Amino acid sequence: MADKKKKRRQTDPDSDSESETLPFKKLLKPDSTILSTLKTLATASSTAGTSSAANPITLSSLSLSSTCREVTDLPLSSVQSHIETLALSLAHSILAGNGFSFSVPSRSSVNQLYVPELDRIVLKHKTSTRPYANVATVRKTTITTRIMQLVHQLCLKNIHVTKRDLFYTDVKLFQDQTQSDAVLDDVSTILGCTRSSLNVVAAEKGVVVGRLIFSDNGDMIDCTKMGMGGKAIPPNIDRVGDMQSDALFILLVEKDAAYMRLAEDRFYNRFPCIIVTAKGQPDVATRLFLRKMKLELKLPVLALVDSDPYGLKILSVYGCGSKNMSYDSANLTTPDIKWLGIRPSDLDKYKIPEQCRLPMTEQDIKTGKDLLEEDFVKKNPGWVEELNIMVKTKQKAEIQALSSFGFQYLSEVYLPLKLQQKDWL
Amino acid sequence: MADKKKKRRQTDPDSDSESETLPFKKLLKPDSTILSTLKTLATASSTAGTSSAANPITLSSLSLSSTCREVTDLPLSSVQSHIETLALSLAHSILAGNGFSFSVPSRSSVNQLYVPELDRIVLKHKTSTRPYANVATVRKTTITTRIMQLVHQLCLKNIHVTKRDLFYTDVKLFQDQTQSDAVLDDVSTILGCTRSSLNVVAAEKGVVVGRLIFSDNGDMIDCTKMGMGGKAIPPNIDRVGDMQSDALFILLVEKDAAYMRLAEDRFYNRFPCIIVTAKGQPDVATRLFLRKMKLELKLPVLALVDSDPYGLKILSVYGCGSKNMSYDSANLTTPDIKWLGIRPSDLDKYKIPEQCRLPMTEQDIKTGKDLLEEDFVKKNPGWVEELNIMVKTKQKAEIQALSSFGFQYLSEVYLPLKLQQKDWL
Repeated sequence: MADKKKKRRQTDPDSDSESETLPFKKLLKPDSTILSTLKTLATASSTAGTSSAANPITLSSLSLSSTCREVTDLPLSSVQSHIETLALSLAHSILAGNGFSFSVPSRSSVNQLYVPELDRIVLKHKTSTRPYANVATVRKTTITTRIMQLVHQLCLKNIHVTKRDLFYTDVKLFQDQTQSDAVLDDVSTILGCTRSSLNVVAAEKGVVVGRLIFSDNGDMIDCTKMGMGGKAIPPNIDRVGDMQSDALFILLVEKDAAYMRLAEDRFYNRFPCIIVTAKGQPDVATRLFLRKMKLELKLPVLALVDSDPYGLKILSVYGCGSKNMSYDSANLTTPDIKWLGIRPSDLDKYKIPEQCRLPMTEQDIKTGKDLLEEDFVKKNPGWVEELNIMVKTKQKAEIQALSSFGFQYLSEVYLPLKLQQKDWL
Repeated sequence: MADKKKKRRQTDPDSDSESETLPFKKLLKPDSTILSTLKTLATASSTAGTSSAANPITLSSLSLSSTCREVTDLPLSSVQSHIETLALSLAHSILAGNGFSFSVPSRSSVNQLYVPELDRIVLKHKTSTRPYANVATVRKTTITTRIMQLVHQLCLKNIHVTKRDLFYTDVKLFQDQTQSDAVLDDVSTILGCTRSSLNVVAAEKGVVVGRLIFSDNGDMIDCTKMGMGGKAIPPNIDRVGDMQSDALFILLVEKDAAYMRLAEDRFYNRFPCIIVTAKGQPDVATRLFLRKMKLELKLPVLALVDSDPYGLKILSVYGCGSKNMSYDSANLTTPDIKWLGIRPSDLDKYKIPEQCRLPMTEQDIKTGKDLLEEDFVKKNPGWVEELNIMVKTKQKAEIQALSSFGFQYLSEVYLPLKLQQKDWL
């Protein structure tokens, strides 16, 4: 028994028969070859970044600044003085005997526009007047004034709070949180700044690991030294800075389980990269963090999502924003994310076993067809083709389906081969 | 205008009128007084730890080892040899012409027992036989064998996977994940080890910040230098080690928003502590992490949860386990957690405004009454009293309700006062 056990132990798991029979493993070239492919990609991405930084496409360069609007990140002192200036003008209006009102940009879908050149949704010019001296609007005007006052307090104290905190400061007035939340978005558009500029932050749920160093609230964080758990992405992007990296790309992962596999295998040491996940639906903090990495480090972003309509939808939220925060799209979205996998064509290409594929539900198929009508899909013929395969075959698959070839198939074969073959769209 | 602005800026937010009128702020003694209170608490806790470590209460010291069972943490090599020994005995049985079967401890509720001395739920001695040569059990026996084989692979490779990964390695056999998940728990009890010993981990969602240094997969992490985001708690507790701390207590927080407030204010620097949250329902990784901190650092654990039945339920999951993982309760639970707040009696004591209290639903009240029947509540008269107040007043409140006194009321008044008055149960 002892001998037997010893013998079994000597079989190196890396060279055992299972690994040799792993599908497609023999297609893999040496890592050095794959790395030079990635270097070309990273260089192209950083050059593209430079040229577009020199001549960035903006609403005004498209002659849209008079008809469309976006909000920008503002420093806290500017938010404070904006509020003070606005308060002063309201006081003047009241003293002149005119009462007061706010001019609120409309955030409804008829006032939204997809701008292909920017690859983002922006707001058109429609605004509505919110007068105090009107039975229909007096409540909302009061709430707007109160929220402005609370945000002004946050500016003075230089602290961050959540939407929930904001609601609880005056439950009697706000009545329920949807009311204070909605007015908070109004205040963003009135002041022309992002919600994070107002120091109102969302709960964080993303994590990051790999070749990235950054500062969080003054502390320097080295993400190669964050073990397997990784670093929790901070909720307040304005206290994140000093990003440095020797990575060649950013790997955006939809799911926690795939993230864990890559973190434990320290995939980022074999192929220098930064691995980030929001564990499902992207939250604002993770979207802001990804955008900041992309812009500051000028790295290509490759996305690893489930092969189903929701995977692509998640990719689209990172890429061009969600509709209910369209006024903020410029600050939340990361341009030019590549769809690495799992793509519908991968299912046959990588011979994913039938029993690991799942039939799409009616709702899945409808969502898939709806996506085919979206501008952000239509502008990428490769994506249209993939999505067509999905709705035609009516099959979906999770990233975890790759485990059917072995637990480490994702990090040892699938991803290296994808990178080697530049197989992204 | 410029003068006006300057003047306003000079008003120090810490000494402004709002802070002076903060309810109960004038009751606060100097921090040094509160710190000496906490030192007494920490000393008491570490002494209690030592004495119970010298004479730990176990199933066998209670003469229950023949009638009850628990699983323990086993090193990977022991799990491997357990599986090999079992496989060998099955082979002998087959060669002797007897076929083979597994003896599986029952995890049903009739086989569960709450042991007051241990303050945990354990399994009684009932087992069932799972023979291969029986139409009723052949499928489950096959699945059991397959899961053992997969766990054995994990031992050889020394990697961690999720339950989902495990399922996808053989979808054809497992059919759906509930089947592989259930058998995985069976395998834990058959081998007498915890699920984390099998290297099958759950997704992490907890974060930790404050006066703690530990190693995650070989990297040393200093949680005072994790900014506001904090460190994500690793999914695999067996790669966590070398815990060091100069904290006086562990602050267990139910909600993300409260965690953020305390992290941004660096509460742990004013009152040396470790702040940990699972962001809602406790996950296995956070429970294991909390337990390890408590045992290694011998620090008292104070819990800050919502004042509703779910807050107390969450506390109970950390404290004495959830029913569906009762076989693993000894390894997942943290003994002697104190209920710091928000307690039902705090609502009046701290004059939480009526509009920030929420009426309990019928379901809430039922859950509250059910809790009153639970052993872990009954053994603590203070908890019973609080819970009685809750179901009598039919009012609940979130931690965030404290924001009605100002965003930083939690960190500047409520918690310091609670600590000063040793107001925990």
